[in-house]
Amino acid sequence: MVEPVTAPINDFFQPRGIAIVGASATPGSPNNQILQFARQMSTTGQVYPVNPTKTEIAGLICYPSLLAIPQPVDLVVLAVGPQNSLSVAREIKKRREEKGDAGAVAVVTAGFKEMGTAAGEELQNELITTIKMSGARIIGPNCQGVADTVSGVNTTFSVPPNTPRGGVTILSQSGAFATSFLRWARDQKLVGVNKFVSLGNMADVDFRELLTYMADDVNTKVISMYLEGINDARGMFEIASEVTKKKPIVAIKAGRTSMGTNVAQSHTASIAGNNDIYEGAFRQAGIIRAQSVAEFYHTSRVFDKMPLPKGNRICILTVVGGPSTICVDELVATGEVTLAHLKDELKEEIAGHLAASANIGSPDGYIDMTASVTPKMHADVLKLLMNEDEIDGIIFMTTPPGFIKDEELAAAILEGYHSVPADKQKPLLSVMLAGNAVAQCRTILEENGLPTFEFPDDAARVMVNMVRYSAYRQRNS
Amino acid sequence: MVEPVTAPINDFFQPRGIAIVGASATPGSPNNQILQFARQMSTTGQVYPVNPTKTEIAGLICYPSLLAIPQPVDLVVLAVGPQNSLSVAREIKKRREEKGDAGAVAVVTAGFKEMGTAAGEELQNELITTIKMSGARIIGPNCQGVADTVSGVNTTFSVPPNTPRGGVTILSQSGAFATSFLRWARDQKLVGVNKFVSLGNMADVDFRELLTYMADDVNTKVISMYLEGINDARGMFEIASEVTKKKPIVAIKAGRTSMGTNVAQSHTASIAGNNDIYEGAFRQAGIIRAQSVAEFYHTSRVFDKMPLPKGNRICILTVVGGPSTICVDELVATGEVTLAHLKDELKEEIAGHLAASANIGSPDGYIDMTASVTPKMHADVLKLLMNEDEIDGIIFMTTPPGFIKDEELAAAILEGYHSVPADKQKPLLSVMLAGNAVAQCRTILEENGLPTFEFPDDAARVMVNMVRYSAYRQRNS
Repeated sequence: MVEPVTAPINDFFQPRGIAIVGASATPGSPNNQILQFARQMSTTGQVYPVNPTKTEIAGLICYPSLLAIPQPVDLVVLAVGPQNSLSVAREIKKRREEKGDAGAVAVVTAGFKEMGTAAGEELQNELITTIKMSGARIIGPNCQGVADTVSGVNTTFSVPPNTPRGGVTILSQSGAFATSFLRWARDQKLVGVNKFVSLGNMADVDFRELLTYMADDVNTKVISMYLEGINDARGMFEIASEVTKKKPIVAIKAGRTSMGTNVAQSHTASIAGNNDIYEGAFRQAGIIRAQSVAEFYHTSRVFDKMPLPKGNRICILTVVGGPSTICVDELVATGEVTLAHLKDELKEEIAGHLAASANIGSPDGYIDMTASVTPKMHADVLKLLMNEDEIDGIIFMTTPPGFIKDEELAAAILEGYHSVPADKQKPLLSVMLAGNAVAQCRTILEENGLPTFEFPDDAARVMVNMVRYSAYRQRNS
Repeated sequence: MVEPVTAPINDFFQPRGIAIVGASATPGSPNNQILQFARQMSTTGQVYPVNPTKTEIAGLICYPSLLAIPQPVDLVVLAVGPQNSLSVAREIKKRREEKGDAGAVAVVTAGFKEMGTAAGEELQNELITTIKMSGARIIGPNCQGVADTVSGVNTTFSVPPNTPRGGVTILSQSGAFATSFLRWARDQKLVGVNKFVSLGNMADVDFRELLTYMADDVNTKVISMYLEGINDARGMFEIASEVTKKKPIVAIKAGRTSMGTNVAQSHTASIAGNNDIYEGAFRQAGIIRAQSVAEFYHTSRVFDKMPLPKGNRICILTVVGGPSTICVDELVATGEVTLAHLKDELKEEIAGHLAASANIGSPDGYIDMTASVTPKMHADVLKLLMNEDEIDGIIFMTTPPGFIKDEELAAAILEGYHSVPADKQKPLLSVMLAGNAVAQCRTILEENGLPTFEFPDDAARVMVNMVRYSAYRQRNS
């Protein structure tokens, strides 16, 4: 017997055709939604519904079986009930023997090992064994599969086809968690996404292979992972520590507590593992671990948009005292970041642009322009700070006075930021503390690649994460 | 010589008339904005601009001096430059001698002790001494003064006159911090405000007196404080520990680090003090200390809207596994909260309402309705949980399936919540993880008094804070 050819992971992300086995004609049902999203997202239109009871769904030819599709099919979405999954597995095997395609299978069906029953575990084992014997690879079961905003793949019923493109690739053991991130991304226009992988029970493809794949994926600038528990943690961390030499990994780990672990087990049948051991392993592998959902979102999107700081010397430019105090507290709390030293000549230059009431350098690295500020002052001071080699990053904070127009403020900030060549750029995070009053300014900055924040401590935590990762890269390059 | 009568703090919040000394006719200038906001907010219209160079501003009679106003003036907004502030102080003294009013003075002018110069400190001392000799009380200098959404006072250029009414009173050493909260409150329609006090340099009225006043203020349901540093910390904590027997105090403390302390000093001339000592004092006084701006905002608004939990037994009702794992982690991490025990009869009843795929009680206190869910199921299960005496609070989490309408979901949640009499209510926090897709549902719930959240860990932290405060109240009543 000839050994089956093992399919490449790439079949999930650049399939020549996608078969939806179990596609439904009922509007609003999950299996109809999957078909609709797959079509809407597809750039090539090669989406094939499979359902023996229909000849057409939503204007597409519907095939009685996977074997009946004449065109190449690299990605199979297995969406039938668990009891029918084995017969689809056998069709996959047959198709691979006959046509050599069908190398990637996203099993979105649930009702396997995560049920906590012997029957569920047995059924999962049989399903996986049957498909793997053909050389095909599986993501899932009990997952939402994959999406890719560039190649146009979407096997989910939850990733909006209009998700904005960007460099963040999310790998998640929770479809709902990853979907929440995407919806937030789309609605707030703060982040762009490249790939989405919902891993579910991880019976075959797991974080290790996906990390390896994403490390070389040119469209992925940052890898963001939601983890509950993993089987080969050592192997995953070994691979991750190589990946982080090339691009950042941001992680959020659920199951920190034993109660959380119990929830994770009922959810994806995973054992969450000891939190302290994970904490050390994340650090050692250069993975940035977020302590909250907000930190995970913000750190992911900023890694995508901003260059890394070259060191840990950060300057605060502000017009608001209280929020800046909170920001500085959070910024220096871990000891990894320091306020930048402002040289006397620089302070004099800055003073030349600001009102007499401005506080320049008390404490060192801190500039309060006070409320007597104009858009031009923003541009002038930012230019000086951007061009100062002994400043590695800037956090800017404002509740702009009513007489400053949003477009003028945004233009001034962009002018200041872009006053140095691209290879000398440094991160600039802008905290906009005036709600809707400054919404237009935020939107202009975000559309032009500058990340903005609602809360000062959120920006500080992201800056600490960037400094931490930059230091890791310098130690490991 | 007759001893001057000391004016009551109440003059700041229920003045018969407000004089704006230094009111400006220049649109967009801070001192014009103060006048406009004072008028827009006023319910009685008794707002009097004072400026010797004008006879009329914005349609109001403008008086040459404070002494020229024939009507009663209880609140004086001192908004002239620092060099002119002493002559206004003398007018205040004279007016008190002649008419007995002008008992409350909000000194919004800056340029005093916070400058860090001997001259600044001296000027402040002279100003305060002059005014206090008359028996009048001072808030500031270097502050934004006060606002009250019920009585209609507004001495600020930053509190929007359309700030929604509610039970949150904010006392802040940073005007910008408090203003950011209010703008967020207004824009997100998530919170209602009662009073706003920006304390500035706290040369006279400080947290102690304001806490005492707010403790008996019927419109204040929760007191939210932004602190940098205080002189009589012991006195403040003694008073706070009495206030927290009546109503919650939520605090955020800036200047946790020595660098943050330096910033605070340049901002309000305050010494931030040792963070560990503060931490213990907050606990002992029953003050809920927020660790982040988001936690401060959310805890404040939920204390206003929700009843306290009677104990620490919390139930999770969800349709999303991953976010729930994160929520449970955060909920049980401090050891103060436990998942509620679900009795067998209750589990059977719940099972009768849900799909067979639902996970009821694994782990105990955790219910995953799964995606096969209807609005009616929400109402039915919430009714059972609300009526179960051994559950003290509920966190509900969802990314509603596309086939459920926002209004139907909101109605079901409200029906479930209101199925018990008001005196048996318990807190219900709803996490809505679908961005704009569920915005309408969020708005309906918020308008009907049920707090909603974007992130699962934010809701968990608020629940922990409520449980902590409830336990404090039970120990100290």
